[in-house]
Amino acid sequence: MDTKKWTQLWLEYHKAYDGDGAWSVAFEGFSDNQVVIANAIYEFRRGIEALTGEMVLESGRDDAGKCKVRTLTICNNQSVPAEGYHIEGSEKGILVEASEERGVLYGVFAILRQIACGRKSFEVKESAAPSNPLRMMNHWDNMDGSIERGYSGESFFFEKDQIIINDRTRDYARFMASVGINGVVINNVNVKAAASYLITDRYFDQLARLSEIFNDYGIRLYLSLNFASPIEIGGMDTCDPLDKEVKAWWEGKIKEVYERLPLLGGFLVKADSEGRPGPFTYGRTQADGANMLGDVIKAYGGIIIWRCFVYNCTQDWRDTKTDRARAGYDYFKDLDGAYHDNVILQIKNGPMDFQIREPVSPLLGGLKRTNQMLEVQIAQEYTGHQIDLCYLIPLFKEVLDFHTHCCEGKDTVADVVSGRTMGNTLGGMAAVINTGNDINWTGDDLAAANTYGFGRLSYNTDLSAEEIAREWITMTFKLSKKEEDLLCSMLLRSREIYEKYTSPLGIGWMVTPNDHYGPSVDGYEYSRWGTYHRADHLGIGVDRTDKGTGYAQQYYPENAKLYNDPDSCPEELLLFFHHVPYTRMLKSGKTLIQHIYDSHFEGEEEARGLARDWESLKDSIPSETFDRVKERFDLQLNNAREWRDQVNSYFFRKSGIADEKGRTIY
Amino acid sequence: MDTKKWTQLWLEYHKAYDGDGAWSVAFEGFSDNQVVIANAIYEFRRGIEALTGEMVLESGRDDAGKCKVRTLTICNNQSVPAEGYHIEGSEKGILVEASEERGVLYGVFAILRQIACGRKSFEVKESAAPSNPLRMMNHWDNMDGSIERGYSGESFFFEKDQIIINDRTRDYARFMASVGINGVVINNVNVKAAASYLITDRYFDQLARLSEIFNDYGIRLYLSLNFASPIEIGGMDTCDPLDKEVKAWWEGKIKEVYERLPLLGGFLVKADSEGRPGPFTYGRTQADGANMLGDVIKAYGGIIIWRCFVYNCTQDWRDTKTDRARAGYDYFKDLDGAYHDNVILQIKNGPMDFQIREPVSPLLGGLKRTNQMLEVQIAQEYTGHQIDLCYLIPLFKEVLDFHTHCCEGKDTVADVVSGRTMGNTLGGMAAVINTGNDINWTGDDLAAANTYGFGRLSYNTDLSAEEIAREWITMTFKLSKKEEDLLCSMLLRSREIYEKYTSPLGIGWMVTPNDHYGPSVDGYEYSRWGTYHRADHLGIGVDRTDKGTGYAQQYYPENAKLYNDPDSCPEELLLFFHHVPYTRMLKSGKTLIQHIYDSHFEGEEEARGLARDWESLKDSIPSETFDRVKERFDLQLNNAREWRDQVNSYFFRKSGIADEKGRTIY
Repeated sequence: MDTKKWTQLWLEYHKAYDGDGAWSVAFEGFSDNQVVIANAIYEFRRGIEALTGEMVLESGRDDAGKCKVRTLTICNNQSVPAEGYHIEGSEKGILVEASEERGVLYGVFAILRQIACGRKSFEVKESAAPSNPLRMMNHWDNMDGSIERGYSGESFFFEKDQIIINDRTRDYARFMASVGINGVVINNVNVKAAASYLITDRYFDQLARLSEIFNDYGIRLYLSLNFASPIEIGGMDTCDPLDKEVKAWWEGKIKEVYERLPLLGGFLVKADSEGRPGPFTYGRTQADGANMLGDVIKAYGGIIIWRCFVYNCTQDWRDTKTDRARAGYDYFKDLDGAYHDNVILQIKNGPMDFQIREPVSPLLGGLKRTNQMLEVQIAQEYTGHQIDLCYLIPLFKEVLDFHTHCCEGKDTVADVVSGRTMGNTLGGMAAVINTGNDINWTGDDLAAANTYGFGRLSYNTDLSAEEIAREWITMTFKLSKKEEDLLCSMLLRSREIYEKYTSPLGIGWMVTPNDHYGPSVDGYEYSRWGTYHRADHLGIGVDRTDKGTGYAQQYYPENAKLYNDPDSCPEELLLFFHHVPYTRMLKSGKTLIQHIYDSHFEGEEEARGLARDWESLKDSIPSETFDRVKERFDLQLNNAREWRDQVNSYFFRKSGIADEKGRTIY
Repeated sequence: MDTKKWTQLWLEYHKAYDGDGAWSVAFEGFSDNQVVIANAIYEFRRGIEALTGEMVLESGRDDAGKCKVRTLTICNNQSVPAEGYHIEGSEKGILVEASEERGVLYGVFAILRQIACGRKSFEVKESAAPSNPLRMMNHWDNMDGSIERGYSGESFFFEKDQIIINDRTRDYARFMASVGINGVVINNVNVKAAASYLITDRYFDQLARLSEIFNDYGIRLYLSLNFASPIEIGGMDTCDPLDKEVKAWWEGKIKEVYERLPLLGGFLVKADSEGRPGPFTYGRTQADGANMLGDVIKAYGGIIIWRCFVYNCTQDWRDTKTDRARAGYDYFKDLDGAYHDNVILQIKNGPMDFQIREPVSPLLGGLKRTNQMLEVQIAQEYTGHQIDLCYLIPLFKEVLDFHTHCCEGKDTVADVVSGRTMGNTLGGMAAVINTGNDINWTGDDLAAANTYGFGRLSYNTDLSAEEIAREWITMTFKLSKKEEDLLCSMLLRSREIYEKYTSPLGIGWMVTPNDHYGPSVDGYEYSRWGTYHRADHLGIGVDRTDKGTGYAQQYYPENAKLYNDPDSCPEELLLFFHHVPYTRMLKSGKTLIQHIYDSHFEGEEEARGLARDWESLKDSIPSETFDRVKERFDLQLNNAREWRDQVNSYFFRKSGIADEKGRTIY
C-alpha cells in the first residue's frame, strides 16, 4: 500500500466562484440517518466549501445570521425514476428530488459537477435517470496484490492474500459514486490461489466491511467466482452443474455467503475460457452452468454475470477455417432464451479481445431473449498500457451507437444492453478498470479520463465523447478556455492516432505476445491464439466472408451484406473482413500499401504533436502531474516510432512496393 | 534434491566377459595413502568387478589361492607427461604408468573403458597425454536451485541459497574424472543474489568440503565471480579496477578466500556483458580488469578466466553498420599481449552465441600473444533443449579443425587453445554443461553423449566424433553391433537434421525470443540483440563483406578472402556472410528458396526417421530409458513440424515463389 497521499482525481474541486453565504440542509421524506443520504451531505459539504468557500451549517442550525443562507432541500419524489434525480437551483437554494437514496447522492454529485463546470448554484438544473440498470467496474486484481493487465501499480484491495481497507477504500467508493457506478467486482475473473477462498470464513469479516463502505455510496459488491469451487474448496471430485451434490454444495455455500455478506450483489463467472474450468468439462452447456448458480442465488436477490469470452485458445495457425471471431456467437446464440431471469451474459464489445478497432460483437442483439451486458476495457491492455494516450470513449460511443438491426427502432447496442429493446430489467455496461495504488490511481493522469468517462457514459449513453472529455478536464484541471480546448482536442484525437501507428484497418494483434505493448507484426501469426493477419507478398487480411470463415453472416442481413462485400465494408474494418491485395485502391485514392505507410508516418508525427501540445500546457498543470505525463509521452514517442518502423519495414520487405513519398523504411 | 536413485551414465559397466581370476594391486612410487590413487583403486575395483566379475583383493593380500591372480601395477614414471598415462595389459596383469596421481586415475578409467568396449584385460594398451591443459565444465547454476538454460531439472549444487553435498556430488566428480575433466565452475557466470556471497564466510566450509571431493578426483573447483563484489559485498561505492582501495579490498578478500579454500583453482568472470558490471563502467579496459584480479590471485597459484562475450545488447535494429559478430574481436584484439600470464580469455566458438551453425570466432588465433580457451555449450540452449536430439561433437570437431591461418602449421583452433601454437601453458576448452538433478542427469538420456563427448574430446582432440559416439554407446547400453551402428548413425545424423529444419545456411536466430526453443522467424528481427536475418521479398542474409559490416575482414587473409566472396564462401555459412536473392543458384543446382523448402521438408522427415530408429531399439533399451527418450522424440517431431511449416510459410509468403514440388506450405 502506497502511504503517500493520493490524488482526488476529478473531485479536487478547484475554486469556481466566491460564494456570499452559507448552506443549510432540509429534508422531505428522507433523513440524514440514512447512510447514503449522510454521505450525500458529506459530499455536498466537501464540494461546496471547496468550490465556493461557503459553509454548510450543522443540521438543525440556521444561525449564521450575518450572511445569506441558502437551503439544499432533499425531497423524496416517487415519480423520479430509480437512481435518477431532479435538481433545480433558485435564489433560495437547490432542490434535489429522488425516489430513493442513490438518486440523492447522484443528484448532489450532479450539482457539484455543474458548479465545477461553471454554473452558479441558482443556475443548476437537470433531470436525469440512468441509461443502464447495471454500471459496473471489473477489477482484475489478484490477492497477492498484482493486477492482471494493470498499469497503475499494485492492487488497493489486496495485499499478500489479505483484504486492504483504509481511507483509500472510501475515496475509491466516492469516485465511483460520483460518476454513477453502482457495482464493483473486486477480484480478477481468473480466480486463482487465495481468491478461491474469498467465499469462506477466512475473508467474510473484511468483505462485509468493504460491502458496507461500498453500500454507503450506493455500490454493490460483487465477486468473481471460481466455477470449480466445489472441487477447490469443497473437496469434491466434480463441479458438474447438473450433479445434485454439487448443487447442494452451492446451496449451502451461498446460504453461508449471504448470511455473512447480505449486501453482496452476486457473482461474475469466467468459465470454460483460456484454461478456466466450466460446464463444458462435463458435457454441459453454458446455460446449465449459469442457471444452476442463478437458481441457487435467486432467493437472496443475487445475480450471476456470465462472461461470453469462450473460444478455442489452442488453435492450429495452419487451420484457416476455424475463426476465433465466430466463437462467442457459435457458443451462445443457440441457447438464447434458455438463461434464467437473474443471469446476465457479459459480452465484450468486439468478437476478439479489446483491439483498437474491431467490429461490434454479433452476439450483442444477436441474442434476443437473454439479459446481456456490454463489457469494455479501460485498462489499456492493447491500447498503450496507460503510457500512450488513448481516450477510449469515442470507441465506446461507436459501439453503443451501432445499429444491430435486431428489430425496428431501438436496435442500437445502447438500446439492447439498457434493456429498452427487450423490456428486461437486467443489463448494462461493465469496464475492466484501469486503476491501481499509484498516487494518481491510473498511472497516466490522463487515463483517468477513461475512468471518469466510462462511469458517466454508462449512466448516460447520450453524452458525447467530447462533452465527457470537457467535464473531466474542467473538473480535474484549472485551465483557460483555450487550454481546455487543446487538451480536449488531444483526448479526442488520441484514439485515431494510436490506431494509425499500430495495426492497420481493423486487423489487430500485431503486438508483442503476452505483454501486449509494442509491435511484433508476426508475434501472433504462427501461434495458437486464433489471431492472424495472413499477410503474404501480395496482400493481407482475413477472409471472413461467406467464401471464408463465414463470420460476417453472424450479423443480421443488413450488416452481413455490408461486411461481406469489400466495396461496402467500412474501410476501417477492411482487413478484419477481407484478404485484399496491397495494390487495392482505397476510397482515399491511395493503394492499401500506401495507406499503411502514410498512416504510420502520420500516426508517429501526430503522436509527436500530442507531446508538443502537452509541453505547451506546462505552466498551467501542477508540475508533478505535468512531469508524470511528460515521461509517458516520451515513452509513447519511442513506441510510436517502433510501431511505425517495424510495421512499415515489415510490409515493405514483404511486398517489395516502395513508398511513393520516398521516406525512410528499413 | 531428487531422492530417487540416479543413473550411473556411462559408468554402469555392463558385463563384458566372464573373468577367471582375481586382482591384486601393487605400487611402485605411489601409495594408496594418496587420495587420488585411493579413488583410482576404488574405481578399478568397482569397474572390474562389474565388467568381469573378478574381485580385487585387499591390499597386501594375495591369498585367493584357488584362482588365477593378476596384478594391477601402479608405477610412477616421470617420463609420462602430466595427466597422461601409459597402460599395458599382459597375462600377468596391467601396468599403469604415470608421473602424478591424476594420470593414474585417468589410466584406470582408460583400462575400464577399453574393457567395456570389448578388449580383454591382457589386450589393454594405450599411451595418452591430454591435448589441453584445462578441460572444464561451466555450470550456470543459480543458488536458488534454478539453472540458467538448464533442461535437466534443478541444480545438484545449490538449493534455497545453500550448497548441497551428498552422494550425488561424488558421483558427479567420478563422471567428470572418467572423461578427463579437471576443472569445474559450479555457479552461473551471471553472479546474482546469494551467489555474490560465495566468497564470504557464509559458504566457505561447504565450499571447502566440495573442493576436497573434487580434488580427490583430480578436479579443481572454480567460482564465477561478481566483478562488482567490492560494491555488492564490500560496501564500497566503486569497483574500478585501477582504484587502489578496490585492489586492496580484493587483496584482503582473495587472501581470506585462499586461507579457507586452498584448493580453489581460480575465478571465471563475465564482465561488461548483458548488463553485468565491468571495467568499461570506469573507462578501463578489459585487460585492466582481468590483470588486476590476476595479479592479486597470482600469489596463490590461482588463475582468472575472463569471458570475451562482450557486445552491445541494446542495438537499434535499423542500424545495419553495427554488427554484433564483430564485437569480440573489436573489443579484445587491440589488447593482445596486454593480458598477464595467469589470465585466460575464454572465447565462444562462434562470434554470435552457440547457434547450430556459425563461423569460428576470428578472435581464436586472432589473438597471438594471449592465453585463450575455447568455450562451447552442451546445454542445448539453441539446439533443442535436450528434447531434440543433437549430438554436438561433430560441431566441436569442425571448430577444433578450423585452420585460422594465424601461422604456418599448428594453426588450427585445437592448436591455438592447447597452447601448442604459442607455447603457452594455460589454455584449453570449457563447456557450458547440460546437467541437472534429473534422474538421468541430462534430461534426454541421449544428451549424455555430449557430456561424455566433450570431456573425451577436450582430453584428446584427435578423437573423431564417431569414435566418441561409439565409446559412449558401448559403455552406456548393451546393444548388438547392428543396434550400436544404428544408434551411432542417429547421433551422427542428428546435428545436420536439426540444422535442416531450423534456420538455414548459418543465419541463425529464428527462435522464440528468450526461451530459444521453437521457431519465430521474426522473433529477433526487430529487437535490440543484434541478431537479424534481413529478409525481404527478394532475398535474405547479412552482408558481412567489405561492402557490408566488414566482419569477414577480421579473419586472416586466406579466410577473409574465402568468406568475402559468395562464390567461395562455404555454402553452409552463405547467409551469415552474404545477403543473397532467393533465386541464387546453389552448388546443388537448386535455388536458395528451393533449398530452404527442401531442407525443411527433409529435416522434418529425417527427424521422423530418428524417432522410428529409436522405436526399433525398444527391445534392447531399458524401458524407463526408452520411454523417457521416446517422449522427447514425440516432442521433437512437433517441434520439427512447427519449424518446417513456419519457416517455409514465412519465406513462401514473403518471396511469393512456389515450391517446385508442390508440397503444402501455408
